[in-house]
Amino acid sequence: MKLDCLSLRWSHEKFEILNQTALPHNEVWEQIDSCDQMIEAIKTLKVRGAPLIGVAASLALAQSAQKNFDIEKLLTEARKLYEARPTAVNLMNCMDRMTKVIKKNHTSKENVIQKAIEIFFEDIELCSQIAYHGADLINDGDHILTHCNTGGLATVGTGTALGIIRKAHEQGKKIHVYVDETRPLLQGARLTAWELQKLKIPMTLITDNMAAHLMSLKKVNKVFVGSDRIAANGDFANKIGTYGVAIHANYHQIPFYVAAPYTTVDFECASGEQIPIEQRTPQEVWGYKNQASETYWVPQNTPAYNPSFDVTPAKLVTGWVMDKGVYTQNDVLNGIFKKEF
Amino acid sequence: MKLDCLSLRWSHEKFEILNQTALPHNEVWEQIDSCDQMIEAIKTLKVRGAPLIGVAASLALAQSAQKNFDIEKLLTEARKLYEARPTAVNLMNCMDRMTKVIKKNHTSKENVIQKAIEIFFEDIELCSQIAYHGADLINDGDHILTHCNTGGLATVGTGTALGIIRKAHEQGKKIHVYVDETRPLLQGARLTAWELQKLKIPMTLITDNMAAHLMSLKKVNKVFVGSDRIAANGDFANKIGTYGVAIHANYHQIPFYVAAPYTTVDFECASGEQIPIEQRTPQEVWGYKNQASETYWVPQNTPAYNPSFDVTPAKLVTGWVMDKGVYTQNDVLNGIFKKEF
Repeated sequence: MKLDCLSLRWSHEKFEILNQTALPHNEVWEQIDSCDQMIEAIKTLKVRGAPLIGVAASLALAQSAQKNFDIEKLLTEARKLYEARPTAVNLMNCMDRMTKVIKKNHTSKENVIQKAIEIFFEDIELCSQIAYHGADLINDGDHILTHCNTGGLATVGTGTALGIIRKAHEQGKKIHVYVDETRPLLQGARLTAWELQKLKIPMTLITDNMAAHLMSLKKVNKVFVGSDRIAANGDFANKIGTYGVAIHANYHQIPFYVAAPYTTVDFECASGEQIPIEQRTPQEVWGYKNQASETYWVPQNTPAYNPSFDVTPAKLVTGWVMDKGVYTQNDVLNGIFKKEF
Repeated sequence: MKLDCLSLRWSHEKFEILNQTALPHNEVWEQIDSCDQMIEAIKTLKVRGAPLIGVAASLALAQSAQKNFDIEKLLTEARKLYEARPTAVNLMNCMDRMTKVIKKNHTSKENVIQKAIEIFFEDIELCSQIAYHGADLINDGDHILTHCNTGGLATVGTGTALGIIRKAHEQGKKIHVYVDETRPLLQGARLTAWELQKLKIPMTLITDNMAAHLMSLKKVNKVFVGSDRIAANGDFANKIGTYGVAIHANYHQIPFYVAAPYTTVDFECASGEQIPIEQRTPQEVWGYKNQASETYWVPQNTPAYNPSFDVTPAKLVTGWVMDKGVYTQNDVLNGIFKKEF
């Protein structure tokens, strides 16, 4: 069995990830030989994107089972992977599913590997379903704003928000995408710009603080973003800056959609206030770092705040585009996210 | 006569500017020997800040008059300086005042020099008056958000919005400032962080997309920004991103103040829609450039949009803090900005 997508390559013999910190200038594939290496890759954002880190962590467990089928070791690794990043729930969901298989009576190496492979193919299918439902919301001539990266680099399929945009483009709709650069780690400028240009989808890069101005000029008529966790009341966490975009869209009466697979829903989390927000190092705010160099543009030791995510309340969302369909405010008020999804 | 402040030094013998593109790492003073050099310094943002460029351009004309008192040449230079940047009206106001003196019957070199010196000292006094009125709006314990740079580097005095913050600090009020980094040119991260740290005013740097999240956590309770042009109806242009901050403040019911001297008012400009917005090169959005190096983090030739300013409508403003006092929505509706100010 060989698994191969934009963001990773896995086989029984070898597991490689595309190091996303080196993009767009260098396409560096790095070999993963252990769960510890995967944890490091997740923490340093070499592997990132809520759906992708869930799948990648599952495949790391499969690799570990393949090398040495030791149930206690696998359970410990699953727990450590679970804790690699705190906000995206997909990782936790995947680790729960893998743990269940590892703990099952008469489980086997094959069972564990099979579950990871199942999770991989499921993600591709979920992306495809999200794109199918979401593309209906896009019209010829739309100018769409997106934030962060939600494409093939954030999943093992075509993406969530960006997968929808891609699908609409493939349907022949003439669309144009404004891409927020997404400071501090610039996933929009580095990754989304790279993906859209590979796909030949017309795009324009902006700094995060330009979106409201564009909206006032009526240059944006739809917003699509992804999510790292959707609470039972429809509030959702996503890359820092998403909440601000949602307020701007609301002020200008522009439809604002969040796209995510069912694995992003945390029905045990009552509201956005309960979603833990990862805090990262001030150094990411001080400047820009890539593999080759670090550039800091601030005075030495400038105090900085660096939350990786923010929470957008359900009331600012026009629609939740999921693999099973598009949910409205009413669906959410009626408790669509309040039970096992 | 010697004029000396944070941003420039002028005497009959020598004119130097602090090259703001080299800050915060290097304090490089560059000699200005002609109006063409000043135009270049303004266009490349070595000299920036709406009030400062008006004063600096006036002093460049004074230097030119000193070197060679040729009325035709001075009028041409004043016109070229007038056009160096299109959005800030202070530059245009100053050039109009200088032109009037140059054109006056029996004018002299001394008259021209004297007017520029008058404009210099007037700016210091205007900053002082703005700070005096604005500091009353700040309470002990306030957490203030600001955008771009509006301090001693944007004026020849203590600044506009930042001058107010400085005054409140000097009054012994315990305040804390959140500084938007202000992409693409990072005037917040490079200049405001530098000024606040020099003044020992507690501050925290954030990326522009974090402000709304901070507001939702109730960590910001006032916003102060500067302005490049205030229209007759109270709409105002300021650094790109200001409009977005104003919408966020409005959504969270946080007071939002704009601070500027009377020289920023353009009573001939009916509304914000008529303010020309400077468009700058996409390369500023592609990455970060300083004197030593250029870093681009995007795929080659990525299309990018780069408006330098945006317009905030009057309805989002809590108060206009000017040298003559603080104006309210009512004052503005009653036409305070509709006549020679």
